[in-house]
Amino acid sequence: MNTRLRADADAIIQSAIETVLPDAAVARALEKLTPPAGKLVPVAVGKAAWQMAKAAGEVLARRGIPLADGIVITKYGHVKGKLDGIRCREAGHPVPDENGFAATAEALALVRGLGAEDTVLFLLSGGGSALFEQPFIPGSELQDITAQLLACGADIGEINTIRKRLSAVKGGRFAAACAPAQVFCVVLSDVLGDDLSTIASGPAAADPSTCADAQAIAQKYSLRLSKDARACLMQETPKQLFNVSARITGSVRQLCDAAAKAAEARGYTPVLLTDRLACQAKEAGSFLAAILRTHAQEAAGRRLAFIAGGETVVQLTGSGLGGRNQELALAAAAGIAGMENAAVFSVGSDGTDGPTDAAGGYADGDTAAALRTAATAAYPHGAEIWQVLAANDAYHALAATGGLIFTGPTGTNVNDVAVALLDKM
Amino acid sequence: MNTRLRADADAIIQSAIETVLPDAAVARALEKLTPPAGKLVPVAVGKAAWQMAKAAGEVLARRGIPLADGIVITKYGHVKGKLDGIRCREAGHPVPDENGFAATAEALALVRGLGAEDTVLFLLSGGGSALFEQPFIPGSELQDITAQLLACGADIGEINTIRKRLSAVKGGRFAAACAPAQVFCVVLSDVLGDDLSTIASGPAAADPSTCADAQAIAQKYSLRLSKDARACLMQETPKQLFNVSARITGSVRQLCDAAAKAAEARGYTPVLLTDRLACQAKEAGSFLAAILRTHAQEAAGRRLAFIAGGETVVQLTGSGLGGRNQELALAAAAGIAGMENAAVFSVGSDGTDGPTDAAGGYADGDTAAALRTAATAAYPHGAEIWQVLAANDAYHALAATGGLIFTGPTGTNVNDVAVALLDKM
Repeated sequence: MNTRLRADADAIIQSAIETVLPDAAVARALEKLTPPAGKLVPVAVGKAAWQMAKAAGEVLARRGIPLADGIVITKYGHVKGKLDGIRCREAGHPVPDENGFAATAEALALVRGLGAEDTVLFLLSGGGSALFEQPFIPGSELQDITAQLLACGADIGEINTIRKRLSAVKGGRFAAACAPAQVFCVVLSDVLGDDLSTIASGPAAADPSTCADAQAIAQKYSLRLSKDARACLMQETPKQLFNVSARITGSVRQLCDAAAKAAEARGYTPVLLTDRLACQAKEAGSFLAAILRTHAQEAAGRRLAFIAGGETVVQLTGSGLGGRNQELALAAAAGIAGMENAAVFSVGSDGTDGPTDAAGGYADGDTAAALRTAATAAYPHGAEIWQVLAANDAYHALAATGGLIFTGPTGTNVNDVAVALLDKM
Repeated sequence: MNTRLRADADAIIQSAIETVLPDAAVARALEKLTPPAGKLVPVAVGKAAWQMAKAAGEVLARRGIPLADGIVITKYGHVKGKLDGIRCREAGHPVPDENGFAATAEALALVRGLGAEDTVLFLLSGGGSALFEQPFIPGSELQDITAQLLACGADIGEINTIRKRLSAVKGGRFAAACAPAQVFCVVLSDVLGDDLSTIASGPAAADPSTCADAQAIAQKYSLRLSKDARACLMQETPKQLFNVSARITGSVRQLCDAAAKAAEARGYTPVLLTDRLACQAKEAGSFLAAILRTHAQEAAGRRLAFIAGGETVVQLTGSGLGGRNQELALAAAAGIAGMENAAVFSVGSDGTDGPTDAAGGYADGDTAAALRTAATAAYPHGAEIWQVLAANDAYHALAATGGLIFTGPTGTNVNDVAVALLDKM
């Protein structure tokens, strides 16, 4: 292993993730919050809800701004302790459940009756779409309609156009329910492109989709709908919201920018390729390796860091252990094999990559050769990278070559960042 | 369709391919040829052999440098007419045949007996590995050994290490046979990275692999070998060649550089990403689209052209019609859907992409919507891009959206170039 490149990788990862932790992100977003004349009511929703609420309480306490009673709605197991004045509710994710519906009803009760002098501090993170829901139809029908849409190949935009109309909080309706109170929305985004109407199905964002869109989709896929559901599709969602201001404070773009900054601090010239990476993990690794090999010849005296953030996908062809970040790094190892000055690493900001205890993977020019002589359970006499990728077993291959990256669960989730490093020759 | 971006694409393609046509490439390489005191013997091998020989004859005639009698060895159907003093031979590709073996024997006879004052003008292009061969073992055993190596998953490097030792011309042995004559080697490269010992298995390049490597490979895969074949693996290939000078005059890198120059001439700032692209075609398209979408927000007043050359692969999951360049462009269309200032195109320098009459594909922000309402034979009511990609039917989808690129067969083959264009908003 190239210990210098590995040390650079570890430093870049640590710095990038710190920037998008809920505490730092919420603190940044609240710097410019003007205290309302009335109450400031915290409503935190999503997988990072508890941590965002805790951070907001601490930041505002330091500034002497009092918080009114509020609520946290997060995934089972994600409440880490009591918070003063905040009801902490846990609910089902990714499939919504009755606990989520009940908690959402509590949140709506909290904000109804607020006045124009009050502000709802709406702390939103990934997972909110399932956790924050009050359907106008029975939960079982909602599940059935979602299943129908998935079965006929509807895309996520089409699914959301239907679901927003079946919900009392999605598609801007939560913000509408807060009126006349203001809504100050702080968002940790797990959606590429940070579209506020998409993150958690946009409880506090005007909905660009229309009833006509929804009916066209219902017709296109011959959806089976109850009379109530059909009536819902005729109810328009808010097209403008005058009481909302929103801050995206954690996002994969910020993760990328932080990685760029950290790379620069270690002497690399950063090149942001994209913050929208959505292709297959191993193909992204191959592409990044191709970029390194091309630039190795001419970079000469410069150190370069190519950065690609997003959310890749894994195609399962085997039954091994791994995650998308580990696959990306291992696939890149094939492309940079033998290079003395190249490394590729990729890491999930939540600290857990696939069903593993690793956050991601690191590979350099030595990895392919090391794997060829490394003994793993599946390959006691060493393996070729293509064999490991076909088995989706990147975890064990990287474990054998010192390429696993561990951070532990970080409490945030703004997707992944991959970095391709080119050192001076 | 965005007609301005399409016009830019067409201009860039035309200019880039012209640069790597055999005529232009050979003319560039021969500019600095010093006429030998003795004979200048042309030996042209590969799919572009006839055109390279013709171009060399014309260029040298203009400079008053006479050519001695020589030979062209190319693929069936690739001889386009008579050439003065040049025997034109056609042979089997990709599977070598007796015509190839006989023609190779003729070439060896031509160069044996030359003196130190003579020079062999060796014009090499893709396909030479099959077309230029004189095996030390029967052709049937050579095929059997190649089949064994492929079946056990040996990589191309391992296969070549074995095959070079079974051949009288590969692995530098042709250049050794030319000695004491000099060899002036002009190469149109179809191998990513332009490694001279890999292109056509390196007839005029010192071989970095060793007999020990070959024996380790034979043992690793338990190859079944005749006594003669085993003896061949003990015969070392040339490790240094003092009589060779080589010019790589057409390569995917030159194709990329020419595309960059043409893009610059039309007002784009070119960004060379890689000349080593080797991942799946549709995933490369997705990656390029992600790059465009990221930079669309900040490019502001700048026009950008991201360039990626190489040779992508297609994963067959359907039975439609298409090629790797068409798949790349169509996949990119999904990622740039709705963008007014973005286009992605990809083209094969040989002018034929897969089993189609198109050279490649073009897609812009309008393509996805156009496809949705376009009638094709497979999808009379329009299609989604993912459906077409699953059917490997990019040809018909691009035909329906005006996205096919036609150049006709170009007579060269230096792989592909993909370009992602971002116009000013």
